[in-house]
Amino acid sequence: MKVGFIGLGIMGQPMSQRLLQAGFHLTVYNRTAKKAEKVLTSGAKWVDSPAVVAAASDIVIMMLPDTPEVEAVLFGKNGVSAGLSAGKIVVDMSTISPEATVQFAARLREQNCEMLDAPVSGGENGAMAGTLTIMVGGDEKTFQKCLPLFQAMGKNIAHLGANGNGQRTKLVNQMICALHILAMSEGLHLAEALELNSEKVLQVVSSGAAGSWMLNHLAPRILQNDFTPGFMIKLQQKDLRLANELIKTLGENFPGTALTYSLFTKAAESGLGEQGTQGLIKLFRNQYNQFDGKSFAPRKPT
Amino acid sequence: MKVGFIGLGIMGQPMSQRLLQAGFHLTVYNRTAKKAEKVLTSGAKWVDSPAVVAAASDIVIMMLPDTPEVEAVLFGKNGVSAGLSAGKIVVDMSTISPEATVQFAARLREQNCEMLDAPVSGGENGAMAGTLTIMVGGDEKTFQKCLPLFQAMGKNIAHLGANGNGQRTKLVNQMICALHILAMSEGLHLAEALELNSEKVLQVVSSGAAGSWMLNHLAPRILQNDFTPGFMIKLQQKDLRLANELIKTLGENFPGTALTYSLFTKAAESGLGEQGTQGLIKLFRNQYNQFDGKSFAPRKPT
Repeated sequence: MKVGFIGLGIMGQPMSQRLLQAGFHLTVYNRTAKKAEKVLTSGAKWVDSPAVVAAASDIVIMMLPDTPEVEAVLFGKNGVSAGLSAGKIVVDMSTISPEATVQFAARLREQNCEMLDAPVSGGENGAMAGTLTIMVGGDEKTFQKCLPLFQAMGKNIAHLGANGNGQRTKLVNQMICALHILAMSEGLHLAEALELNSEKVLQVVSSGAAGSWMLNHLAPRILQNDFTPGFMIKLQQKDLRLANELIKTLGENFPGTALTYSLFTKAAESGLGEQGTQGLIKLFRNQYNQFDGKSFAPRKPT
Repeated sequence: MKVGFIGLGIMGQPMSQRLLQAGFHLTVYNRTAKKAEKVLTSGAKWVDSPAVVAAASDIVIMMLPDTPEVEAVLFGKNGVSAGLSAGKIVVDMSTISPEATVQFAARLREQNCEMLDAPVSGGENGAMAGTLTIMVGGDEKTFQKCLPLFQAMGKNIAHLGANGNGQRTKLVNQMICALHILAMSEGLHLAEALELNSEKVLQVVSSGAAGSWMLNHLAPRILQNDFTPGFMIKLQQKDLRLANELIKTLGENFPGTALTYSLFTKAAESGLGEQGTQGLIKLFRNQYNQFDGKSFAPRKPT
């Protein structure tokens, strides 16, 4: 099975490495060629456009930042669509608009090609370890064909129905993550503001009904003042934008999701976009401190 | 060591049973005498007022609904205070105002008695299993003296500093819990509204970065339409009121906590107060349904 991979960013690089390690032959393309160096060293083959990737592959995987990039790579000049022939499969592992996903899949079906939406959760560490959660929407037979690829990259792989349902599930995942990050930020900052022992509070709180993956994995980083990104604030903000767009189509109120969207937007606009999502706490710490977007001066006792 | 126990509600009953099982002699009082029947059968001794409990005990434990009840039991007519003598210890395991806690401890210290604030997390199941999380504020030596009692009732026991810090930590715990319940409610309701397979979504989402104790323990109850209380909405709402009062003294913004307080208040006012906290999802489901506070008519596909 010949596999193509387009998009070799923070996630795409380790994901394609996992595929190479599993023995798949990989043809790759990336807008910035330099980012392909490592996977080329590992045995991937470089070509000069998405169209050539599609021509050379049975299954084309994309891992791109947002809806416009996916649309351009699929249907732009020298795009995937131009290199496809009947029976080929496109797997979009980016997190993008569910509605656009459904439209893209329909357009590819006119070329007798199936598309799967297969966004992931688990961040760079999960991608490197091959333990990603993969949420798949699309045709069942196509899902089965692609399963060996998913198994090389992920651990918890779920088929959730028709095209778009992978993206919809991912947005449910992201709105929950965002509220958990808010809970962590407000909880840890309240502990700080009350001059409690934050480490002890975290230990006792995370062991019970208030426990979460975020408290276990990101809260210790906050206590160490480590704001390097596992997942960037600007990407979390993008996912919340997609979630809010989806919610608008329902005409319902999701006030927690609306709140996290406004707070992550504020954080991104404050210069925190490239930091890890745990950096959201700086919005709260900053209520008492001069804010420079990078460092944190401990709050003075009142 | 003679132990007194005042407050034999949903939590107090199993907690006092654990103490009896661990071999402590228990003298008990409860406003509603009937609720004491089970612990009396298990060997506890009934007396007619908090004052007599205090006179008969070295350590007096209280497990009461809110600040006014604790104040009345301590300092009201025939209250604990009237039965204390120097060297006795009061352990308040209720969740109440941290500021009031500090005042109560100071008043008892005038009688040469130490008080600990030791609120718990883990609900009725945790109380029955003796696996409560116990967050303790107060004098270190007094904490050490009471540790065997805590070990009979709980598993994760933390001493967090001076009086009030147990309550403060509990409120941090409760604000995090409330935001996790909101995340669960919005996430599961979005899955329902999008007509996704809620069980599959829950399985895939809870296994990754969106994972939480709430998703593991309460979300399956929602999917089974089980709204019996592990912890009641009206008590969660009370804890959020205490958290918001505490936050007001800081002059800072905690918008997530403010939001959950308003939503839990809305839920309590809608007749959901006696239901489990997972019942918060009904606020969201009700956006499309006639609301009777009890049942849920599945949303019609659009």
